[in-house]
Amino acid sequence: VCRIAAALGGSSGPPPPGEVWIGDDAAVLSPPRGRLVLSTDAAVAGVHADLSLVGASDLGWKALTATVSDIGAVGARPCYAVVTFCVPPGTDVAGLTAGVAEASARWSCPVVGGDVTGAAQLVVNVAATGELDGSDPPVLRSGASPGDDLVVTGPLGASAAGLRLLQEAARTAVQHRRDPTAEEAALVGAHRRPLARLAEGVVARAAGATAMMDISDGLAIDLNRLADASGVGFALDAVPVAPGATEGEALGGGEDFELLIATRDPWSLAARFAAEGLRAPIRIGRCTADPLERTLAGRPLGRLGFQHRLQ
Amino acid sequence: VCRIAAALGGSSGPPPPGEVWIGDDAAVLSPPRGRLVLSTDAAVAGVHADLSLVGASDLGWKALTATVSDIGAVGARPCYAVVTFCVPPGTDVAGLTAGVAEASARWSCPVVGGDVTGAAQLVVNVAATGELDGSDPPVLRSGASPGDDLVVTGPLGASAAGLRLLQEAARTAVQHRRDPTAEEAALVGAHRRPLARLAEGVVARAAGATAMMDISDGLAIDLNRLADASGVGFALDAVPVAPGATEGEALGGGEDFELLIATRDPWSLAARFAAEGLRAPIRIGRCTADPLERTLAGRPLGRLGFQHRLQ
Repeated sequence: VCRIAAALGGSSGPPPPGEVWIGDDAAVLSPPRGRLVLSTDAAVAGVHADLSLVGASDLGWKALTATVSDIGAVGARPCYAVVTFCVPPGTDVAGLTAGVAEASARWSCPVVGGDVTGAAQLVVNVAATGELDGSDPPVLRSGASPGDDLVVTGPLGASAAGLRLLQEAARTAVQHRRDPTAEEAALVGAHRRPLARLAEGVVARAAGATAMMDISDGLAIDLNRLADASGVGFALDAVPVAPGATEGEALGGGEDFELLIATRDPWSLAARFAAEGLRAPIRIGRCTADPLERTLAGRPLGRLGFQHRLQ
Repeated sequence: VCRIAAALGGSSGPPPPGEVWIGDDAAVLSPPRGRLVLSTDAAVAGVHADLSLVGASDLGWKALTATVSDIGAVGARPCYAVVTFCVPPGTDVAGLTAGVAEASARWSCPVVGGDVTGAAQLVVNVAATGELDGSDPPVLRSGASPGDDLVVTGPLGASAAGLRLLQEAARTAVQHRRDPTAEEAALVGAHRRPLARLAEGVVARAAGATAMMDISDGLAIDLNRLADASGVGFALDAVPVAPGATEGEALGGGEDFELLIATRDPWSLAARFAAEGLRAPIRIGRCTADPLERTLAGRPLGRLGFQHRLQ
């Protein structure tokens, strides 16, 4: 516990005056400037990461990143995280904590407490707080209206394609393996170290987005969830596919963590993204009045997506 | 997920206006009235509960109760919880969620979000926020001084004794089993449904307690932690043993969740407890100037305690 606390606490630096971080029963923290946001996510070895293909550090990175992505997906900024490690004997604890610490630093979300316990299966659980500035409402899944445009913050399917490449490489005899191309390396990187679109979430809220969520289970599943929550249908024109990924991976692959956004004013959204130096949002279609209409290029789009089960 | 959300969300009632609870990417909540407190704890089947002896509902109860106990142990009140379930096939999910929901209602700490994932081992992770009213500092492990009295909020060892009784009963052939006595039933109840001393924590802070923690790993381990953090020694006179428990269970058994409190003014503390209708705190000894002095009735007291490993 002390070693883990040192690794995580050290990476986060000392707490500001008046705050208590790792080491006591609970952390004591400055209150959020606006409303309090709270989210949690578990990353399970063998479910969310195949540790024969990626490192324990990647599992740690993913657990923290997935949690702050949920905070960003309502338009808030992450503030603090607490982490639980359930660790079987032989776990690469140093790698695990390093991955959590790297993500914590990357997303400016210090780890202020945690718990370590023995277990038969490796689980990293992260809970994080965030703050929602100002008096505008959060951007929920349920706010989309017929006619709203649907956009995503980037092409999809990279994480699933990266996993496929790692699985293919593992099946290839060592003497037949070759160096990955730059495109392949990017896909593997997207699988191992996905990014949370935190700035995009804040800017989308400021630009008046009507509904938002992060795409963690695949566009097909998550877009249907947004449509269900909003009571709308959707008509997609096309889906942006990450270079080297397939359309199936873009629709059904999970853990890209790009944001799915509904907006009445896609031009204003694009202008705000450009003003903040963010990648241009990509229009994929629009919301429709008939809640039963769920189409891609005129054909029905079901919920085939990533079910958090590898293979 | 929907079934679990309904079970947990339903038990917590609808959110107040302006708040978002279960169902979106993250919960959006009223900020704490004072400082923000944050804590997390995992309960792992086979480590924190033997599911051949207790129900999944007991594991759920314990996970939430242990987490709010940590909030109370700095003198704060719990506010909101988020829960992650890692569930193997065949898990009694209804029982699990019922146990979490019962504890959530008992400790006035609504479950406002969560996550469910498949896993090979059952893990319930709870993270909770709390609020620390006023400007007084939290009561940490590190605040005790030589001369402070040490008290506990109740007799110890009940949970460990209850586990022992359950193990003995399981080894007894069915035809030789008898009904438990009232004392035995109380011990089993303490193991299955431990209580968090939330009111006691708040009152102890108001009464000027110098150091505090909850006894989750056993008095011997936890008192040594408090002494380490405070840079003091201790001289215990005696340890209060729960009726039917052994002194070994009182010293080394974990998960009683009674509070261990250091105070300069035990009379004031006792008077405040009485005024609030709380059980009288029990004096067990005092803090000493020599950090190497760690004694019970004049004999050295090591760290033999509950190591979160059943049998």
